[in-house]
Amino acid sequence: MMSKHAKTLSCLPLLLLAASPATAQGAPGTEVAVHTVFVLNTFLFLVSGFLVFWMAAGFAMLEAGLVRSRNVTTQLTKNFGLFSIAAIMYWLIGYNLMYPLGNWSLGTDETGGYLGAFGLAVLEAVGIGPEGADDLSYASTGSDFFFQLMFCATAASIVSGTLAERIKLWPFLLFTALLTGVIYPVQASWKWGGGFLDSQFGFLDFAGSTVVHSVGGWAALVGAILLGARKGKYQAGQVNPIRGSNMPLATLGTFILWIGWFGFNGGSQLAMGSIGDAADVSRIFANTNMAAASGALVAMIMTQFLYGKVDLTMVLNGALAGLVAITAEPLYPSLFGSLLIGGVGGAIVVYGVPFLDKLKIDDVVGAIPVHLFAGIWGTLAVWFTNPDATLFGQVASIIIVGAFVSAASWVIWSILKLAIGIRVDEESEITGLDMTELGIEAYPEFTT
Amino acid sequence: MMSKHAKTLSCLPLLLLAASPATAQGAPGTEVAVHTVFVLNTFLFLVSGFLVFWMAAGFAMLEAGLVRSRNVTTQLTKNFGLFSIAAIMYWLIGYNLMYPLGNWSLGTDETGGYLGAFGLAVLEAVGIGPEGADDLSYASTGSDFFFQLMFCATAASIVSGTLAERIKLWPFLLFTALLTGVIYPVQASWKWGGGFLDSQFGFLDFAGSTVVHSVGGWAALVGAILLGARKGKYQAGQVNPIRGSNMPLATLGTFILWIGWFGFNGGSQLAMGSIGDAADVSRIFANTNMAAASGALVAMIMTQFLYGKVDLTMVLNGALAGLVAITAEPLYPSLFGSLLIGGVGGAIVVYGVPFLDKLKIDDVVGAIPVHLFAGIWGTLAVWFTNPDATLFGQVASIIIVGAFVSAASWVIWSILKLAIGIRVDEESEITGLDMTELGIEAYPEFTT
Amino acid sequence: MMSKHAKTLSCLPLLLLAASPATAQGAPGTEVAVHTVFVLNTFLFLVSGFLVFWMAAGFAMLEAGLVRSRNVTTQLTKNFGLFSIAAIMYWLIGYNLMYPLGNWSLGTDETGGYLGAFGLAVLEAVGIGPEGADDLSYASTGSDFFFQLMFCATAASIVSGTLAERIKLWPFLLFTALLTGVIYPVQASWKWGGGFLDSQFGFLDFAGSTVVHSVGGWAALVGAILLGARKGKYQAGQVNPIRGSNMPLATLGTFILWIGWFGFNGGSQLAMGSIGDAADVSRIFANTNMAAASGALVAMIMTQFLYGKVDLTMVLNGALAGLVAITAEPLYPSLFGSLLIGGVGGAIVVYGVPFLDKLKIDDVVGAIPVHLFAGIWGTLAVWFTNPDATLFGQVASIIIVGAFVSAASWVIWSILKLAIGIRVDEESEITGLDMTELGIEAYPEFTT
Repeated sequence: MMSKHAKTLSCLPLLLLAASPATAQGAPGTEVAVHTVFVLNTFLFLVSGFLVFWMAAGFAMLEAGLVRSRNVTTQLTKNFGLFSIAAIMYWLIGYNLMYPLGNWSLGTDETGGYLGAFGLAVLEAVGIGPEGADDLSYASTGSDFFFQLMFCATAASIVSGTLAERIKLWPFLLFTALLTGVIYPVQASWKWGGGFLDSQFGFLDFAGSTVVHSVGGWAALVGAILLGARKGKYQAGQVNPIRGSNMPLATLGTFILWIGWFGFNGGSQLAMGSIGDAADVSRIFANTNMAAASGALVAMIMTQFLYGKVDLTMVLNGALAGLVAITAEPLYPSLFGSLLIGGVGGAIVVYGVPFLDKLKIDDVVGAIPVHLFAGIWGTLAVWFTNPDATLFGQVASIIIVGAFVSAASWVIWSILKLAIGIRVDEESEITGLDMTELGIEAYPEFTT
Repeated sequence: MMSKHAKTLSCLPLLLLAASPATAQGAPGTEVAVHTVFVLNTFLFLVSGFLVFWMAAGFAMLEAGLVRSRNVTTQLTKNFGLFSIAAIMYWLIGYNLMYPLGNWSLGTDETGGYLGAFGLAVLEAVGIGPEGADDLSYASTGSDFFFQLMFCATAASIVSGTLAERIKLWPFLLFTALLTGVIYPVQASWKWGGGFLDSQFGFLDFAGSTVVHSVGGWAALVGAILLGARKGKYQAGQVNPIRGSNMPLATLGTFILWIGWFGFNGGSQLAMGSIGDAADVSRIFANTNMAAASGALVAMIMTQFLYGKVDLTMVLNGALAGLVAITAEPLYPSLFGSLLIGGVGGAIVVYGVPFLDKLKIDDVVGAIPVHLFAGIWGTLAVWFTNPDATLFGQVASIIIVGAFVSAASWVIWSILKLAIGIRVDEESEITGLDMTELGIEAYPEFTT
Repeated sequence: MMSKHAKTLSCLPLLLLAASPATAQGAPGTEVAVHTVFVLNTFLFLVSGFLVFWMAAGFAMLEAGLVRSRNVTTQLTKNFGLFSIAAIMYWLIGYNLMYPLGNWSLGTDETGGYLGAFGLAVLEAVGIGPEGADDLSYASTGSDFFFQLMFCATAASIVSGTLAERIKLWPFLLFTALLTGVIYPVQASWKWGGGFLDSQFGFLDFAGSTVVHSVGGWAALVGAILLGARKGKYQAGQVNPIRGSNMPLATLGTFILWIGWFGFNGGSQLAMGSIGDAADVSRIFANTNMAAASGALVAMIMTQFLYGKVDLTMVLNGALAGLVAITAEPLYPSLFGSLLIGGVGGAIVVYGVPFLDKLKIDDVVGAIPVHLFAGIWGTLAVWFTNPDATLFGQVASIIIVGAFVSAASWVIWSILKLAIGIRVDEESEITGLDMTELGIEAYPEFTT
């Protein structure tokens, strides 16, 4: 099975170009060039892929740090479980649904693809030569599958934080299976599989402010509304802050996400075999870092001025919002542009968290402001820096993806709610999910 | 000193082949090809090597999370110390014992090598040219040494978890010195140094289900038997569960091990300079991830059905067992095959942990089911997927390595027991090793 | 803007040499060679850069583990904030101050440069071809900026640990802005920007024992003297040990720093595109690892003999001191030389910590012995292994950098002290900075 996708493979590999006259003559130097591009692109995917894998640990630590100690084991189990389920579902149906390579089940490349292909992901054979590669000018299918799988898992990780401290384990994992197997791949095919958002709307989303982050955000938002707030969070017209149990864990998680994001955005260049691609990946690394730093600093300064004290959880979420915001276009902005885009992301979090509280939507870790609100902002901001972007294409795509993911999530959450229930009972919630749902305390010797 | 080993260097580098006709003519393009292969292979070793290094941190966190807080500082010290000792012992004698390059102290490449060469590891000189490379078609000796050292340290890390909460610090470190300096390298030379298991038995073990993981497992098993169980673990015919003090740490450790395993298995391809090698390393990454996910999910589902509740520590160990199981052959299986191999690993843990308890063998972190039982399973499973494997070669090698490591460990542990004692006194065990052995509490403000 | 620096770019890339005859003829094979070197060098910077980024997390965890729980949130906030500030300041003025590329504001390349250029850092354009690269024989400017920025942030991270538990948040961050924007880049330009220490003194400092680590150490030392010791640390002629709150965090932080150091030292080869460079980077990885292991083991053995018990915090700092010591010259020493250099580093820590206590200089995490004392030792040790080093050049440079950084730090800390105060009030210190300065406890459920 061939494997290649339409995700911003903008510049033709220069090495390939340089070597092409000689290709016809079969000179050895030529072969080397083509092979080296394939190897370097593959290497980029593998390194970027393990960095994005590492984000799964980041989400787990961030969320474990931001919930109360009585729910920590449950939160860890959800994060570990969701990644495992994503890995299997993406192989089972997600990968080919997302990258149909023209074999759409609904639509065509020309008229616009709507539903991808069904079938297991299949890797290239062992020990292939040039003729055995699915796409010699790209990278190995195994590296592409590995890399793309990590994005799918990321979308699911976003959901688990918002719904913490009250959702049942298995309904959450069932939702994850459908999110990673169907919802994420279908909408991702519309852009990165060359579907209708890519071909008909000219939608631009380099590494997934919308395609990954807002998807997790919408699914989380719908879940939070259907699930309701935690007991005691909103009482007598008041918002009662519920403090996270472990700030070093939350900070570690954020650092992990930050380093993982270099792979998330950098790997999305999809190529490392030419001067242009190497320089572009470098721009992306530098811009990604700048946006995160700026988001953190803006949140730091704003909480100082608004509340008189710096709020570490806001600072952490500010960095993450900066990262989400730059994700839709980490290549074109200058460092100064990245500072602005990330900084607005940080501000969005500072206002977004109390805004949700005003609506009594209980988002335990702030994932909705970070991934949905900043994701929308980042997707719109592409219009400012990438000349190929249109405001219509960006706005329409945000709405279409949002409507699809929200509707699909609503249906799935509602069915789960009716069929098996999604919320633990009140006593469980008060005691903590760790003892009632799993029987294992996270810190048996620290708390009473 | 030349440096190269027989570890599954199966496919001839394609770039080299492609370029070879021109080599005779001294065309510049040719030189480039050979050099690029050397550089890319070296790069693979360095990246994989730091990932496997990271596993040392993973073991430290996993074990620190699974012991009681009174023994955490000791467990951290052991893990930090064992890595440092491994680094020095492997340089001092391990590396050349393991890779004698034909200069066997006992045996020959033809009749079968049994004992490697003695001498310090020596790196290539500073700023070498092509003529200064120990093996131009392979990779730099420094990168090979760095990568292989990390495997040696991994074997030692496995032991420390099993013996936690009751073993004395220095006897453990002395054992580590002999394990990393002698036991591990000698048996590893039998396979990866081209010794008799490789040449006479046709033993296949791609990245070390037997050569690394079962070695740690056997050493741990013998140690656990000689050391005896922790006070109160088995009382009046009952197994008293002793809960780990910090689940986020244990989860973090498992995530670290998982990411490190991409280097462990991926780097064991030993080559990244051709299309075939790049695609193979990619297969390995994807298969390794699948086996881990499958092991975790199987443990999750099984503990739900068997005990009515998901057991996070089983899920973590399930992922690790999946990883150990795929390690003997992460290249040949399909993704579906990896799912099966890893899933059986997960099941082995779920049954293996209570099985050891029935035998009153006290394995604090479950390292024996994970590394020994799943390591044996993974070594046998090579027979299902790699056409070159023979059942006899696999079984005989498992037994020979097991017998050697167990016997050598028994001798060393017994001498240590007689000479200086290996177990702390009862009062120390009750108070906790941190205060009595080291005088530093891990969490002085959290526990009373 | 072009971008390249004088940091030990010793060996001409061999690939380039091999290919150069054909360059004149414009043969395709040649282009490939040059491009591949650029790509591989860039790849090295990106991978090394994210490893050094990871060190920011390492410092945060190490310091959070070594302070009391009442000051943990503050310590995390400082570390997260200082990295963000460094990222912005280095872009705003640091990068061009450090690498003026001959455009000195004060001095010239010939007479000796003293003050670099002013201006924002600017990356190469999107999708460049060979003619668009700032320096085709080096690497992309974006990757160089990304890599160098991480070194600047490291210098700032060192300061925060020493001054923990009593310094106010914002004065610390203001100092960081000047350290990362001005002090660090100016003195770094003297060596790595090709300034007077490089051109007139023949100073050698491969990856920054002096240029990075001692700089952080001097700034911390001056700050500690001006700030004074924590309440109760030195009382009635006694030194009262104040225990860190979380040993696993401190150990995790050290492991993170250790892995990050492979990028710190390895990436400082600045090239990966030839056999010589690949082998050199490998030597550096192996030597760096050896020095850390040796430093840890020496501290382990020495604390056992001196105090009768192994001291984990000394062991962790011993590893770090080994790493700092090898940083000035990680390439030339043999593995045995690295063992000696790192081991002396470990010993320096064991004696340096009580030595500072005797002077009543309160260094909360031991950063001054680790980064300053071992940094001086490492810089001197270059003289033993690198034939190009002169004792005069090394000593003079240590003194000049030390005098400049100390004087500049003294001025800035003093102004901050007078203008806004740098120390929290006594009540805050007793209650803990987390509640009084930030209002967020790190572990609200664990401590009373």
